[in-house]
Amino acid sequence: MDVSPRLLVVRRGQEEESFHRGRAVVATATGETVLSIGDIEAPVFPRSAIKPIQAIPLVASGAAKKFGLSDAEIALACGSHAGSPLHVATAQSVLRKIGLSQNDLECGVHWPLDSGESRALAARGEEPTVLHNNCSGKHCGFLAFGAVRGLDVAGYTNASHPIMREVTKAISLMAGVELDESQACIDGCAIPAFSMPLVSVATGFARLGTGECLSPVLASSVARIRAAIVHNPLMLSGEGRFDTCVTAECRGEVFVKSGAEGVVAASIPALSYGLAVKIDDGAQRAATAVMANLLLQILQKDGIATANAIEALTGHARFQLKNWNGTVVGAAETVTRTSS
Amino acid sequence: MDVSPRLLVVRRGQEEESFHRGRAVVATATGETVLSIGDIEAPVFPRSAIKPIQAIPLVASGAAKKFGLSDAEIALACGSHAGSPLHVATAQSVLRKIGLSQNDLECGVHWPLDSGESRALAARGEEPTVLHNNCSGKHCGFLAFGAVRGLDVAGYTNASHPIMREVTKAISLMAGVELDESQACIDGCAIPAFSMPLVSVATGFARLGTGECLSPVLASSVARIRAAIVHNPLMLSGEGRFDTCVTAECRGEVFVKSGAEGVVAASIPALSYGLAVKIDDGAQRAATAVMANLLLQILQKDGIATANAIEALTGHARFQLKNWNGTVVGAAETVTRTSS
Repeated sequence: MDVSPRLLVVRRGQEEESFHRGRAVVATATGETVLSIGDIEAPVFPRSAIKPIQAIPLVASGAAKKFGLSDAEIALACGSHAGSPLHVATAQSVLRKIGLSQNDLECGVHWPLDSGESRALAARGEEPTVLHNNCSGKHCGFLAFGAVRGLDVAGYTNASHPIMREVTKAISLMAGVELDESQACIDGCAIPAFSMPLVSVATGFARLGTGECLSPVLASSVARIRAAIVHNPLMLSGEGRFDTCVTAECRGEVFVKSGAEGVVAASIPALSYGLAVKIDDGAQRAATAVMANLLLQILQKDGIATANAIEALTGHARFQLKNWNGTVVGAAETVTRTSS
Repeated sequence: MDVSPRLLVVRRGQEEESFHRGRAVVATATGETVLSIGDIEAPVFPRSAIKPIQAIPLVASGAAKKFGLSDAEIALACGSHAGSPLHVATAQSVLRKIGLSQNDLECGVHWPLDSGESRALAARGEEPTVLHNNCSGKHCGFLAFGAVRGLDVAGYTNASHPIMREVTKAISLMAGVELDESQACIDGCAIPAFSMPLVSVATGFARLGTGECLSPVLASSVARIRAAIVHNPLMLSGEGRFDTCVTAECRGEVFVKSGAEGVVAASIPALSYGLAVKIDDGAQRAATAVMANLLLQILQKDGIATANAIEALTGHARFQLKNWNGTVVGAAETVTRTSS
């Protein structure tokens, strides 16, 4: 088995304390590889990184239009939200519009992803509901698709349910992979989780960013999703969180989406590039830093980086470690190369 | 550079999703290697794993005795506590006994390590204080040593302060390494952080568990520390947390202490073994699983494992992954070998 290269080094003082190995790829909509680090054909579970792709049936079916969903509501369907009151209210709004309730959601309950939101909820004397699940927006999108098709939504998280079949089909078309529903694993929010080559995730994001290699319906659907995301980055994750910050600071140039276990995918529409990173050990701190570094190098090389984008990406690609007193005690630095 | 072997594999369904590489060693008090995985001479920052060693001056100086510290208070000085009301009250009790206050603590403030304790604090409308810092017990121990010596404790976290010099000396004697205070990095709680060969951490824990190779004063000090820990495992970390659970379930056979960035150290006094694990990427889930598996194999091989210990260790060495609905979606399994 290939050993993945070291991509992020964490130092205490000047000494190495930990490091992360991983794989990364930049590809076009046709699957052409622009940059490759590690084994990009080896499989990855993209997890929540492909939420913008899983949201396609919501738009392509006409559900978003019929129910009058706002761009913010569509963006929430693409997000792993922090569980803030705004996120919860946005999910509730979708349920009201489609005539369903939180009892129809099958994603399960967890305390808000964001520890600050979690404590704020506790301080209000409340307990989390299914709406606080970081995937509740995505699941509301699934229900909207089911509602417009007049489907019985019960059991919609099963791989063989018509809603999930449509979602699986969208992933398959976007990533250019065949997916067998009988081979599905299960994601944290109960829906099917498929593995696929890392390069296929990048291909999917190149198509998502450009509409290239897609049917007219799919191409116009991804254009709506793209617009929804770049105008509502707060719905992607939340205040101060990676996906939101990078997408906000790089408005129009880049959008990114993270998934659990060290995955991040991104699009650079102007260059027709899709990007995907998988850290072997599943560490998010490394996935976000490596993606930020890749984006930074590509944007700078092509001269399309704004000052804001450079600042935001630099801050994620290379960051200081501070102790509880705020003293700088070390740093994390990416060692990603732009050539294979 | 050597590539560390794979030690923990995380699967979704039957497919590999992530994995962790790392190093592990079992050594005796003389530094003889019983088992070695990966490069055990390469350095590691033991971080909080060596708190029981950093507590030696508290006991060896006579401070614990003079101020009438309880076993629970000594155990808290060896722990990375969860920030529960009991932990906070125990730290406060030490401060009262030594005539100092929380204003003297220099470890910094953070929300309780344990998310449940953190939310409970928020629900009470409170903010964390320096006493909630997971290292507050250790720092109270430092202050107790300073108090018994009549030292000015201000700035005690500096490597050149007499308190830290005594702590550094204890680490040096226990691990059998020379430490240069001018080369100290800084830990999360502001005290010096030294790197040392992984095998030296294991050697230190073999000495901690047996008193072998130590002066009579040090040997009796580590005996007191050992007794304090095994009778108060709750002070090591907290309800449901690894150090507390394993030390409680293996009472008398084993004690373990975790540190940040994927480090766990342990003692098996009956066999005169010290153990140390470092996961390359700093993941705690892998460090605890790998340590549990090592302990399990050794205890079973030597026939000294109780049913409780086997059950507890097995549960940490190999665990299921569940989604938010409680459905099993995967598993993490250690691949540690008992031969090098």
